[in-house]
Amino acid sequence: MSNTTGRLFRVTTFGESHGPALGAVIDGCPPGLALAAEDIQADLDRRRPGQGRLTSRRKEPDRVEVLSGLFEGRTTGTPIALLIRNEDGDPAAYEHLRTLYRPGHADFTWDARFGRRDHRGGGRASARETAARVAAGAVARRLLAAWHGVEVVAWVEAVGDVAAEVDAGTVTRAAVDAHEVRCPDREAAARMAEHIAAVRKDGDTIGGIIGAVARGVPAGWGAPVFDKLGAELGHACLSVPACKGFEIGSGFRGARMRGTLHNDPFVVDETTGRVRTSKNDAGGLLGGISTGEDIVLRCAFKPVPTHFHPQATVDRDGRPAALQNRGRHDPCVVPRAVAIVEAATLLVLADHALLFRSLGR
Amino acid sequence: MSNTTGRLFRVTTFGESHGPALGAVIDGCPPGLALAAEDIQADLDRRRPGQGRLTSRRKEPDRVEVLSGLFEGRTTGTPIALLIRNEDGDPAAYEHLRTLYRPGHADFTWDARFGRRDHRGGGRASARETAARVAAGAVARRLLAAWHGVEVVAWVEAVGDVAAEVDAGTVTRAAVDAHEVRCPDREAAARMAEHIAAVRKDGDTIGGIIGAVARGVPAGWGAPVFDKLGAELGHACLSVPACKGFEIGSGFRGARMRGTLHNDPFVVDETTGRVRTSKNDAGGLLGGISTGEDIVLRCAFKPVPTHFHPQATVDRDGRPAALQNRGRHDPCVVPRAVAIVEAATLLVLADHALLFRSLGR
Amino acid sequence: MSNTTGRLFRVTTFGESHGPALGAVIDGCPPGLALAAEDIQADLDRRRPGQGRLTSRRKEPDRVEVLSGLFEGRTTGTPIALLIRNEDGDPAAYEHLRTLYRPGHADFTWDARFGRRDHRGGGRASARETAARVAAGAVARRLLAAWHGVEVVAWVEAVGDVAAEVDAGTVTRAAVDAHEVRCPDREAAARMAEHIAAVRKDGDTIGGIIGAVARGVPAGWGAPVFDKLGAELGHACLSVPACKGFEIGSGFRGARMRGTLHNDPFVVDETTGRVRTSKNDAGGLLGGISTGEDIVLRCAFKPVPTHFHPQATVDRDGRPAALQNRGRHDPCVVPRAVAIVEAATLLVLADHALLFRSLGR
Amino acid sequence: MSNTTGRLFRVTTFGESHGPALGAVIDGCPPGLALAAEDIQADLDRRRPGQGRLTSRRKEPDRVEVLSGLFEGRTTGTPIALLIRNEDGDPAAYEHLRTLYRPGHADFTWDARFGRRDHRGGGRASARETAARVAAGAVARRLLAAWHGVEVVAWVEAVGDVAAEVDAGTVTRAAVDAHEVRCPDREAAARMAEHIAAVRKDGDTIGGIIGAVARGVPAGWGAPVFDKLGAELGHACLSVPACKGFEIGSGFRGARMRGTLHNDPFVVDETTGRVRTSKNDAGGLLGGISTGEDIVLRCAFKPVPTHFHPQATVDRDGRPAALQNRGRHDPCVVPRAVAIVEAATLLVLADHALLFRSLGR
Repeated sequence: MSNTTGRLFRVTTFGESHGPALGAVIDGCPPGLALAAEDIQADLDRRRPGQGRLTSRRKEPDRVEVLSGLFEGRTTGTPIALLIRNEDGDPAAYEHLRTLYRPGHADFTWDARFGRRDHRGGGRASARETAARVAAGAVARRLLAAWHGVEVVAWVEAVGDVAAEVDAGTVTRAAVDAHEVRCPDREAAARMAEHIAAVRKDGDTIGGIIGAVARGVPAGWGAPVFDKLGAELGHACLSVPACKGFEIGSGFRGARMRGTLHNDPFVVDETTGRVRTSKNDAGGLLGGISTGEDIVLRCAFKPVPTHFHPQATVDRDGRPAALQNRGRHDPCVVPRAVAIVEAATLLVLADHALLFRSLGR
Repeated sequence: MSNTTGRLFRVTTFGESHGPALGAVIDGCPPGLALAAEDIQADLDRRRPGQGRLTSRRKEPDRVEVLSGLFEGRTTGTPIALLIRNEDGDPAAYEHLRTLYRPGHADFTWDARFGRRDHRGGGRASARETAARVAAGAVARRLLAAWHGVEVVAWVEAVGDVAAEVDAGTVTRAAVDAHEVRCPDREAAARMAEHIAAVRKDGDTIGGIIGAVARGVPAGWGAPVFDKLGAELGHACLSVPACKGFEIGSGFRGARMRGTLHNDPFVVDETTGRVRTSKNDAGGLLGGISTGEDIVLRCAFKPVPTHFHPQATVDRDGRPAALQNRGRHDPCVVPRAVAIVEAATLLVLADHALLFRSLGR
Repeated sequence: MSNTTGRLFRVTTFGESHGPALGAVIDGCPPGLALAAEDIQADLDRRRPGQGRLTSRRKEPDRVEVLSGLFEGRTTGTPIALLIRNEDGDPAAYEHLRTLYRPGHADFTWDARFGRRDHRGGGRASARETAARVAAGAVARRLLAAWHGVEVVAWVEAVGDVAAEVDAGTVTRAAVDAHEVRCPDREAAARMAEHIAAVRKDGDTIGGIIGAVARGVPAGWGAPVFDKLGAELGHACLSVPACKGFEIGSGFRGARMRGTLHNDPFVVDETTGRVRTSKNDAGGLLGGISTGEDIVLRCAFKPVPTHFHPQATVDRDGRPAALQNRGRHDPCVVPRAVAIVEAATLLVLADHALLFRSLGR
Repeated sequence: MSNTTGRLFRVTTFGESHGPALGAVIDGCPPGLALAAEDIQADLDRRRPGQGRLTSRRKEPDRVEVLSGLFEGRTTGTPIALLIRNEDGDPAAYEHLRTLYRPGHADFTWDARFGRRDHRGGGRASARETAARVAAGAVARRLLAAWHGVEVVAWVEAVGDVAAEVDAGTVTRAAVDAHEVRCPDREAAARMAEHIAAVRKDGDTIGGIIGAVARGVPAGWGAPVFDKLGAELGHACLSVPACKGFEIGSGFRGARMRGTLHNDPFVVDETTGRVRTSKNDAGGLLGGISTGEDIVLRCAFKPVPTHFHPQATVDRDGRPAALQNRGRHDPCVVPRAVAIVEAATLLVLADHALLFRSLGR
């Protein structure tokens, strides 16, 4: 019962890695928004596998079909259903995993919860599920851009120990996409790509960090006390497969700071008369509500659990078993996860855009 | 509309810092649980101000009254309403803050969202609000302990740069409460207390980190894809005032690791026959579902924004203003926030305990 | 977990008939609404017992205290908690009912669901619970009147076989309150009062019908497909104790009509230019969305199950038992239920007012 | 945002009458339930148009495809997505209705709410939407039958003034389906069919009443105070297009009764030891919770608004316009609505089955 997220911009996703299809239903997208399947496809293309030597070689065209909610090029206020057929599934390749518990994967916990599972490619626990989130996120992106002037950009900030220097204030999506590793710091990107290649050569995998910024969010979004904007963004990002950590603004760094240093002074912008802060350690949020400054967040991703070294494990009957992966897998998830973190962020913001409206202010 | 959290164990809180009262309504607590006001009071007492030289000197007895849902010592399945009267409020002391925007506080953002606010002591944005969460968390604690054998313990892991060594596997609540700073590493606790005293003497404040563990959570709790247990815990913790970062298991450290190192191997416990992992970098969660191992998390808290140095700021009309705090304020929030992080964790777990039940497994 | 209603104007109620208190928390009431405890008291006074010879003689002052969410006479956008202490409870009077299943009451079903219950005066199953709804409804009434020009009036339309003629288009609250039976048809009201007196003299009880109208609801409220306005109103009214039937507009009468007769023709109002219908068999709703015409509904109430004739029944151990009620009970619920139906209607409309706003139209 | 219903058995529907497809996503169906597309198809076939001379002649095969949530013949606990392609749409036939407000339809109110609409065949406001509910209801039917022994049967109880005598305690689905009018009283069915034929010949339409029973629901389902089982069933039925009235048990008839007559005495079943009632005016519910007796309800449907007489109306610019319908339309909705009322009932019961489980009783 937790395949729906959001209150006013509500997204429900469905689909297994090797079932007939994945998809999303967006309920609550306001009427009158210009939208085309191509808008959604653009985001999906950034997430899909088979993009280069850094990612899985599964070939999924991930073509989206809009089944409802659009009429003559605009949304109607009714549910927008998005369908993505699975095409390059190879279910037979997973037969040896039917009863095996792969370390770092959700095989065991899924059995513990549901008593059964579609073992093919991880079933619903596969990161393939995020295609549906990205599709829905693309609709949120359109809404936020067209109606609220909000833009969300994410990037790879670290791959293992290779860290980049990225200015959240100026980074562009074009700069991110300029390198297949999706790090806008070109020099770091090159080293990241090398690092990923080396890890892959070792038959291993590596974790990483994604940074993201939301620009143009007006002051006032976020719903204390439980649904503060940072809490909602954290929820959304931590629900992305492999995400194990989340920070907003100063994050863990802020825990070492003194108040005299951390507080962002308020000033008035001479030209606009708007209240602003002269720096942004808050990461764009105070008391869980947006300040109007850039919202800046970071997500930590554990290494992909599917590496190519032999692993000792157990099966569902508790018998020892040996696991030897082969096939097509990403050595590092973060280049593709950039699109997913953006989608997670966009869905939260779209929901809060509508929640703010309901205040009638 | 976001003062409610949970789906089956639902908690709604209310109340302002200097209004008549705070409180919580718990809807969905199962019938038949032995519960007394004293169980709740015990947790409230850990959170309340005026506990010693490390915390605010506001004297609030924070006595809880149970208004409903209890009959002859047991819950009835009806809403449990908890009431805490405010007694030591001093509204007049806040008159100079009526239109001022305190840096690091929610004054400006609250105005941006709601257009008005109760400025006395921060109103609803005050951390005083968390008394209600702690009260509700105490009911969740009883439920989880009595019916599911689950125990949650949090502790102070760092104050500024002073870090402790804490074994999440063995730390006890008694060890945490043995020192007023609530760090079970006695040597580190002493240094933390010194550090806080020094910071206070400087008229400054300092951030910190809280660690927490949930023991005894059976395998199978958590609701993919959107409401994974780590995402829900992150949401709950990040909604605590001043929390800016959250990690589960390896967290940001995991982002630097390789898959061969990160994966926790599955083994079978010889005596119980239970599937376990031989280490726990996952922090007790795989695919967002509990593994049965300890759930381990960390929360980063920014420094308290109320320090005693002069600050330049603006008021609601955009005019420059000077802020000079005085009065009673915590120099470091983490000793008291231990009880709040526990409550946040407990509320999530209680909700997922009931969600798991609804599967009928 | 179902003591909350609404999505944006969310109301949570709590309290048992003979516990310490009843109350409601309203989350989502927009900031800036002028509101005073007296506004709420006025509605509570219409519902409370002890109003005259037609109702229960339990003497409850039902004084409401506002615990939060108000500041300097206006709402702040934070939860509004309302508290009503129980004062005239007489728990000992219920000892003989501890294990008995009263016919027509929820004693047996409550045990079947919860395994235990507060038997005193019906506990949470008592209609006394509706005091909290009425209190919350009074806030909704203020919001709807002040911000949307919406007015809700209910009346007694029938007591047993005694039916009134009431013009929904013109009936006023003053006319309703002019007679203690709360029927604005003076002649029918007199006969109803006589009928109730006769029934009471027989030691019996009698059912009735309440009609209600909402005037001034603009076209566009209601949320297809599942939360059509009529469905939501039906839900709210059917959740009122003893309500067994609900109609909107033509209702069951419409089931006998032909389309040529039932359809309400659209016309344009010459003066306002507004699209209207020249009659209103739809009861103000088409496709579950308001038309701008009066919303007209009817609710059927079964007779109060507490009569004074001896009844054979069983106890919780399945043993035959004799029930002989005595004490203070309403012979007919509808005069007091007028305030409850209004509250139910108001809460739905307030929620939909905010939902409509979230569309940004 | 209101295309989702249910809390634990959650159903989201999508699709317009003449868009590419309709569908439903069921989130929360427990794992392990044997289910096949054929189970769903059987219910869809009862609802689909083109079944005979009493219904619309639109030819929609309404073939359902299961896109997710099923693995090797059983549910997995993941979302079950159901897809039904529209095939016999004829969008051009609706061009003259693009700006016209048809009396009794939702054209005007949809515009008032959303500012735009897909006018083809009523778009989302078309009763065609209910195909998705029926598909989802079929899954609920499987769950309730297989795991809880619950059976739901609905029937046509009246067409205009032609009323049937139906014993809710014994009526079977086979008896209902034996006549195309779906009334199990054969003699009344024949008169109903005649009446519908006569009405059709007049170019007119007629309303009707549907009765339904749920058998085998154990005592204890229903969630006071707001989500009583009768309130939830009312909500579900009143959200079915054209439904204007709802009764549970004695309904409006009960409003005329005395308490001595209405109360259902409790007795103990000699053989099972179960507490039962010796009659069932309550309609299977007391205090909003099931008693274990049959749940009996009735729904009133207004006449189909599309008749073939000329109608005067207005268009969206407020200009007078003439409407003359032609084409394929049902003269009476109730024969096909039997399947829809069953689905509405089934979805509520499945949700409450899971809610009851979450109590752990």
